[in-house]
This record gives sequence, structure tokens and C-alpha cells, in this order.
Amino acid sequence: MLSQHFKEMTKAPSVIRALSVYATERGKEIGYENVFDYSLGNPSVPVPEAFNQAICDLLKEKTSAEIHGYSPNPGNPEVRQIVADSLAKRFGIPYKQEHIFMTSAAASAIAHSVRCVAGCGDEILTFAPYFPEYNPYINESGAVLKVVPANTETFQINFDAFEEMMNEKVAAVLINTPNNPSGIAYSSETLRHLAEILYKKQEEYGHEIFLISDEPYREIVFSGADAPYVSSFYDNTLSCYSFSKSLSIPGERIGYVAVNPKAKDAESIVPMCVQISRGIGHNCPSSLIQQAMARCIDLTSDLSVYETNMNILYKELTDLGLSVVKPGGTFYIFPKAPEDDAIAFCEKAKKYDLILVPSDSFGVKGYFRMAYCIDTNKVERSLFALRKFMKECY
Amino acid sequence: MLSQHFKEMTKAPSVIRALSVYATERGKEIGYENVFDYSLGNPSVPVPEAFNQAICDLLKEKTSAEIHGYSPNPGNPEVRQIVADSLAKRFGIPYKQEHIFMTSAAASAIAHSVRCVAGCGDEILTFAPYFPEYNPYINESGAVLKVVPANTETFQINFDAFEEMMNEKVAAVLINTPNNPSGIAYSSETLRHLAEILYKKQEEYGHEIFLISDEPYREIVFSGADAPYVSSFYDNTLSCYSFSKSLSIPGERIGYVAVNPKAKDAESIVPMCVQISRGIGHNCPSSLIQQAMARCIDLTSDLSVYETNMNILYKELTDLGLSVVKPGGTFYIFPKAPEDDAIAFCEKAKKYDLILVPSDSFGVKGYFRMAYCIDTNKVERSLFALRKFMKECY
Repeated sequence: MLSQHFKEMTKAPSVIRALSVYATERGKEIGYENVFDYSLGNPSVPVPEAFNQAICDLLKEKTSAEIHGYSPNPGNPEVRQIVADSLAKRFGIPYKQEHIFMTSAAASAIAHSVRCVAGCGDEILTFAPYFPEYNPYINESGAVLKVVPANTETFQINFDAFEEMMNEKVAAVLINTPNNPSGIAYSSETLRHLAEILYKKQEEYGHEIFLISDEPYREIVFSGADAPYVSSFYDNTLSCYSFSKSLSIPGERIGYVAVNPKAKDAESIVPMCVQISRGIGHNCPSSLIQQAMARCIDLTSDLSVYETNMNILYKELTDLGLSVVKPGGTFYIFPKAPEDDAIAFCEKAKKYDLILVPSDSFGVKGYFRMAYCIDTNKVERSLFALRKFMKECY
Repeated sequence: MLSQHFKEMTKAPSVIRALSVYATERGKEIGYENVFDYSLGNPSVPVPEAFNQAICDLLKEKTSAEIHGYSPNPGNPEVRQIVADSLAKRFGIPYKQEHIFMTSAAASAIAHSVRCVAGCGDEILTFAPYFPEYNPYINESGAVLKVVPANTETFQINFDAFEEMMNEKVAAVLINTPNNPSGIAYSSETLRHLAEILYKKQEEYGHEIFLISDEPYREIVFSGADAPYVSSFYDNTLSCYSFSKSLSIPGERIGYVAVNPKAKDAESIVPMCVQISRGIGHNCPSSLIQQAMARCIDLTSDLSVYETNMNILYKELTDLGLSVVKPGGTFYIFPKAPEDDAIAFCEKAKKYDLILVPSDSFGVKGYFRMAYCIDTNKVERSLFALRKFMKECY
């Protein structure tokens, strides 16, 4: 018999996907260049040429078995060493190969981390606004996701609400900085305060509380932003990284979990990830992609376009009188809608071929997300539509 | 708190891995060329040159977003269409794109299939000898794996034992043909009989029983073997394929689930796999690897060496008086050990630098597995060691 659970899940509509499909359909009518599609977080800048070159070089230099053969379950050992060395050098934390587990991007890194540190009935807290895919990653593990209400002043952490929701069942806290959808990076002050509370609560409850840090936007940080490395603040941190955004390779499915060497039982966590992976289908990333990435470990795509786009949109949105916290990174901006019903607002925007995502699925009402990983020219052309929309409707 | 469940799992030793590590260590002492390492099922023949060429061509021909961008969750649509067309043409089953779900090789295909058709407390039956990784794939889904004892005469199915173990809780039957570790391919007669029983039991129990067919060795079939396509015999079949062995790319993690178009709710199964994948970390295979594979869909590596090696070993083992069923495919052979304790037998073999895997972890006692995906020259050199071992010990 087919699983009713997964069959039911197929019926839940994805708001973002539906908007993206709408944008594509509308593009067939009026030309996609005329649809101001701010729906999807798909990197718009190309991969660094060095990455493609590394692939071709590897195919020439190495044997078939070296390139295409099995990598050990935690990933290619040389690749893991290169990742550890790079992190150690950049962030001053003495990572070794044994602390790195290669994954199918951040999604897989989070799914493994959650299963490592939380079981059936345990709670994992995250902070609104949050990435809605956390729901399946966590729900399917048996743990329960609880969402701390947003601090809508700054989109830093709402510590009062957080402390109120902390309890003995909390096994982990999951954060995402720089944040999808708000674009905000947690400051050093925020992370210091978060760590203080977690250390205090660990003591109080007599068990570890892990910090799962989802950081695919780590390399997309704008000038002036205070966007420190999370694991520097708290020992029991599992950093979940993806190269999807930094190298513009989301389809290649590559990332890692980096275990803070001072975490409780740090040396057990990668072997546990291996066991978890066995149960869910050995989703080690492609061996070729691992090795090509390792040759580009400290490179990124030219990410400057995202800051350019952000500045254009931030200026326009504030000029239009919208309330918006200036992003510190990512390629998202998260303004307050001029009416309480963000879904109605985004529906009206469609008439101006503006594809905006209402904030409801991110755990906050009354805001909307714009993913500005699109051509700057299109961002500029969208301003006229934005002005017209606001003038005619509000 | 770290998951005790996964922490415990790290302590269970893998016999095959331990033997492989031993072989590598011994290789450092006497030269790996002198270790007759029959432990691991790692393809020894190179990838077809056309696969590497396809990668380089794609990187030149397509844009960064076309190659490295997100593929939709079920896989790249063009790639799925090419897979469907190839299967339809070869096996006469009208697969369409909607029946193909791209996976991280067969492991992931099985993990998804199991979750689609079985839930907590359901039973899944498989037949000894069987691939031990079925345990984590199934146990972690909440279903229960039950192993039907082997038919050691032929290593086809032990139907008496199977019918005895069938009951209303059985949601699926998992088979692997050609088989790891026996090397045997299920005959048309076997598959017809299996289908008859399943159709009868579906009727009797009033619910579907799915057949999950694990077939990574489908393309490695020896002359004279009757190795038919499983899905042709039974409508409710999910075929789990991997290109690891046929293209010698196990590290690239690519395969698929092909849903028989006549299966119950066939059109629901791929969307369900997408939901399952969300929960376990979106393990879609690399976009580049998907597209390169599609350009080589009907190619294989030069697989003939495996039959050559099989014939050499089969002759020698029978000449030595060992009881062995001649393999119909794969790169495994599964002789009866000359003493009841296969673990003791394989331990003694180490003194002759013969690395053999005892059958116990495959669900049968008293046999051993040789993975002859190694150079023919080494196979030939190993015969002297085999003879010496048998002469001195038995």
C-alpha cells in the first residue's frame, strides 16, 4: 500500500513554486524578460571558470577509479582535509579532516545534523522568519520544529520569546545567518547573547544543546555588515554549508557539516553521520564535483551583483515609504507590505508582473520576500512597475 | 544529546570494510599487487571515454545555469525523458518521464522506494543471500526486513519458505538480480512464479504488494544466462537502477527509480519520492552528471573482463572440488566453503593473502564471496595461492 503520509504531502502546495510556475507561464505570454520574477533563490551569476577548468583537468590527470570511484562514506579524504584546512585558516578553529562530513548541499547537511543530535519527541527551535524546508528536514526525523516569533524591528533574535520557549526537551537550535528570507546577518552581539543563553541552559538542563548553523549565504555579505562565523561563539556547533550560492552550483549538490572540534563527542559525530547516510540512501556528493570544488575551495563566483541589486531595491523601497531592514547579505530583501494581508498584496502585484513571495510560509505575517538574484537591468526595469503598483494600489 | 541509536550503529563492525582495510594494510607490507583482494565490489574497468567527453562538451556548449543550476526535485526533465525512452525501447514497457525519479544511485532508489510503499511495522521480505545494506535502508524507514532462507541448490528463490513467510503485513518484496553476492540471475521461470504468488496474495490480502527490484548489475550478464527484465513480469514493480557498475562511476552517485506505468497509482509515486527526498535532504544527483549520463544512456564500460574472470575462477574452484553455482552475471562468485565455519575459513585464507568475505553477513552460513572486479592477471596469479591454501588446509 502506498504511504498515505507521503501521498498527503504531495497535496500541500508550495507557494514559492506556484509563483515560479506562474512567472514562467506569464513569460510565455509577454516574454520572460518582461516578468519581474523575484520568486526563486537561484543564483544568477555564472560559476567561476576555474571550476569548469578543474573538472576538465581532473578528467585528464587522474584515472577513472580516482575520479569516478567510490569515495568513502564521509567524503573524499583529501577533499575533507582541504575543507578543514581552509576553515581553520579563515576562522582560527582547529578543524581536522575527522570533523568534516561531505553532504548533498546544505539540505542534506541539516538533515544529517538534526538526526545526530535530536530524536523522537525532542524539540528544535528556530527563529522566524525561517526557511520553510526546515519543516520536512525536521519533521521526518521524528523531532519537532518550534518557531520563535520574529524580532521585526531588526530581524535579529527575539530573545525574550526565545527564553520563554526554551525547555528541557530542546535538543538543538537551528539558525540561518545571513538569513533567507530577511537578508539579515546575525551580529556578534546577537551570537554572543545566544551562546550565553545556550551555555546557561545546558548547565541548567544537564544536557547538551547543539547549535545547527545553516550558512549557505556565508560568502554573500555586504560592505559594513557584521557577519561573524557562528561556530566561534559556541562549542557545540555544527556548521552546515553549501557551495550552491558561493560557486553558483546549486544543481551539483555539494556542501558539508563542519563539527566544532570542541563540541561534545566531536569525534563521534562524523561517524554518526555516516550511519545516518546509510539509512537514507548514501547521499555522498559526486566524487568528481568534490574534487573540482576542492581545487576552488577559496574561490567564489563574482557575487558583487547581489549587493548592487540590493542597494537599488533598498533605495527604491524606502523612497516608496515601505518599512524595510537593510540586508547584510544573501540575495533577499524582506520589506513590510503596505497592508496586513501579504498574500493579497502579492496577488495584486502580479497585475504589474511583479512576482513577490508573501511572508506567511516563512513564519511571519505582513511581509514579502524579493529574491534579487536576477540581472541588474531587470531590477532597474522593475522599479517603474513597483512605483506604478504602489501609486495605484496604496 | 547525541542520538544513542546512531552512536550505537557506529560500533557495529562492517566485515567487508574490515577486510578491505586489512588488504590495504597488508599491501603496504608486501605490495598491493601481491594481495589477492576479493573483498570489495568496486568496478575495475574504466568509464567509457564518451562519458568524460560528454562532461567536457556540456561545459562548453551550455550556460552555467543550464549545467550547474538546480534540477527540479525529480531530476532533469530531459534526462528523465531519455531514461524513459531507453527503457521503453529496450523492454517494451511504455515508461514516460513521469515514471522516472533520479536518485543518488541504487541505495537512494531503494531507500525512496521502501518509504513509498511501506510504513511503520510493515514487513518487507527479501531472499538470502542478500546485500546487507538492505538492513539500514529498511530499518531506518520504520518497516521491518525479513529474510527468506536461501535455496542453496540454485540460489534461485526458495518458494516454500517464501510462501510460509508471506502474511498480511508484507507490503513489499525486495529482490536483487543478478544477485550480490551469489552472482545468480533469476530466471524467467523464477520471476513468473514469484509474480503468480504476489498476484494471488494481493487478491487474498486485499492490498497491493510492491516488488522492489534492485538491479545495479542488470548490464553485467554472462553468455547463456536467462536474465529477464523484472518489471515485465509484475505490474506493481519499482525498478531501482544504478549506473555505478554499468558505466564504472560508483562515486558519481547516479541512478533512478522506474515505476511500472501499470503499477497502482503509478502517477503518484514520483511525486511521493519528491516528498521523501525533502525529508532526507534533497539528494538529487549532480546536474552535470545527470546530463552526461543521458548522453551515454545506452553505453556501458567494457564489461567483458568480468566474464573472463568468472570463467577462470569457476573452473579453478570446481577443479579444487568446491561446490559452486555458476554465476549468470555481476562480478561475484559464491562458493561453498570446505568447512561449515566460513568465518574461520576466510580467516585462514588471509595467510595466503587471499581476501575472501564470509557469507554470514549475507544471511547464509558456510559460503564465501569473491568480488572478481580486479585485473585478470591478478585473478590468474591468485590461483596458485588458492591451490596452496586448499591443499595445505583441507
